[in-house]
Amino acid sequence: MFDLDLLKYLEGFLTERRKHRFEQVLAKRTNFLTVAIEDVYQLHNTSAVIRSCDAFGVQTVHVIENRFGKRLDKNIAMGAEKWVDVHRHQTTTACIDRLKTDGYHIIATTPNENGNELSDVKVTKKTALFFGTERDGLSGEVLKRADGFLSIPMQGFSESLNISVAAAIILQKLTKDLRTSSVQWQLSENELLEKRMDWTKKSIKGVERVIERYLTT
Amino acid sequence: MFDLDLLKYLEGFLTERRKHRFEQVLAKRTNFLTVAIEDVYQLHNTSAVIRSCDAFGVQTVHVIENRFGKRLDKNIAMGAEKWVDVHRHQTTTACIDRLKTDGYHIIATTPNENGNELSDVKVTKKTALFFGTERDGLSGEVLKRADGFLSIPMQGFSESLNISVAAAIILQKLTKDLRTSSVQWQLSENELLEKRMDWTKKSIKGVERVIERYLTT
Repeated sequence: MFDLDLLKYLEGFLTERRKHRFEQVLAKRTNFLTVAIEDVYQLHNTSAVIRSCDAFGVQTVHVIENRFGKRLDKNIAMGAEKWVDVHRHQTTTACIDRLKTDGYHIIATTPNENGNELSDVKVTKKTALFFGTERDGLSGEVLKRADGFLSIPMQGFSESLNISVAAAIILQKLTKDLRTSSVQWQLSENELLEKRMDWTKKSIKGVERVIERYLTT
Repeated sequence: MFDLDLLKYLEGFLTERRKHRFEQVLAKRTNFLTVAIEDVYQLHNTSAVIRSCDAFGVQTVHVIENRFGKRLDKNIAMGAEKWVDVHRHQTTTACIDRLKTDGYHIIATTPNENGNELSDVKVTKKTALFFGTERDGLSGEVLKRADGFLSIPMQGFSESLNISVAAAIILQKLTKDLRTSSVQWQLSENELLEKRMDWTKKSIKGVERVIERYLTT
């Protein structure tokens, strides 16, 4: 059971400004759109994607670490990973299985396949956007299991955009469209309470002792 | 005088496919929009901005190197700098003077000033978009001399986007709008010929000897 009394108690340790900021940000957060990053071995790219998720209100990022192991550093996303839920998956299979079970439509972003152009895409179902490595793009498994493809039209010699750049362009556009659509994109009541608790705990120094004191009085 | 015969002669060394690619790309190039980067000391950011300019058809980038000297490496933009004209300026003053003389409207992109939001902006005049450093943003001089401000609305805790990410989002949106507007955004006939010559020369190995042979026969 969610302990609402504990949340209210802990929120007493926050400034009004802080509490208000959490409310503002949470009101724009979504899990209707999510992002999965497959094997991106340049850390500054992964961190930039997480930062863009924070900036555009995407609450959850899935990081698949098939080949390069646990490379995602806790401190690289300029603190953004504190406010974005990063789920790690050891294989692409596990990540797609999980997302499909959770009802997500899998969209592979790729400059190569014939897919929808960004301007034509409307997000009407829960959608997970997959981004691949700079060099090789997405794996065959993602391309095979994807429900659709998405590309950003380009007019130059470059065959692809930097992954952090591609992700930001797509997220900015799709989250903006989503917020003005009739879709129920917001976090659920439960998700909102859980994030309030999570963020509040992260904002209180020595929160374990504070909770202990609360529970024993 | 532009030597059209020389161009035709040199183009004889290109494959049809290559010539066709140049035509395709040049048809989408613009100098109606240009980009100026002030003192970006993280090279991968500058290179990503140049790559985005190539991808979205912006032909010219201005790099201001006030503090960090000639840091821009020729090979960093995955080859994109070969197809994008990079103009270097030693000071912000020199860069703005030059752009104003050339009739550009100076737009400072910044998360801080109260400016227009990206979705409200229409490019109806020749426009130079200024991007600042990751840490400090644009200099006071740019903010003071700017004709307008532009920001990307954000919904999270991050106060700013990575510069390469901000530039890509803005360029993708504004170039897309521009191409469907009634504005004469295309390169002039002279600019088109010059770029054809430039790109053709860059595509021929030992081009100096080829030209020498042409001029002496």
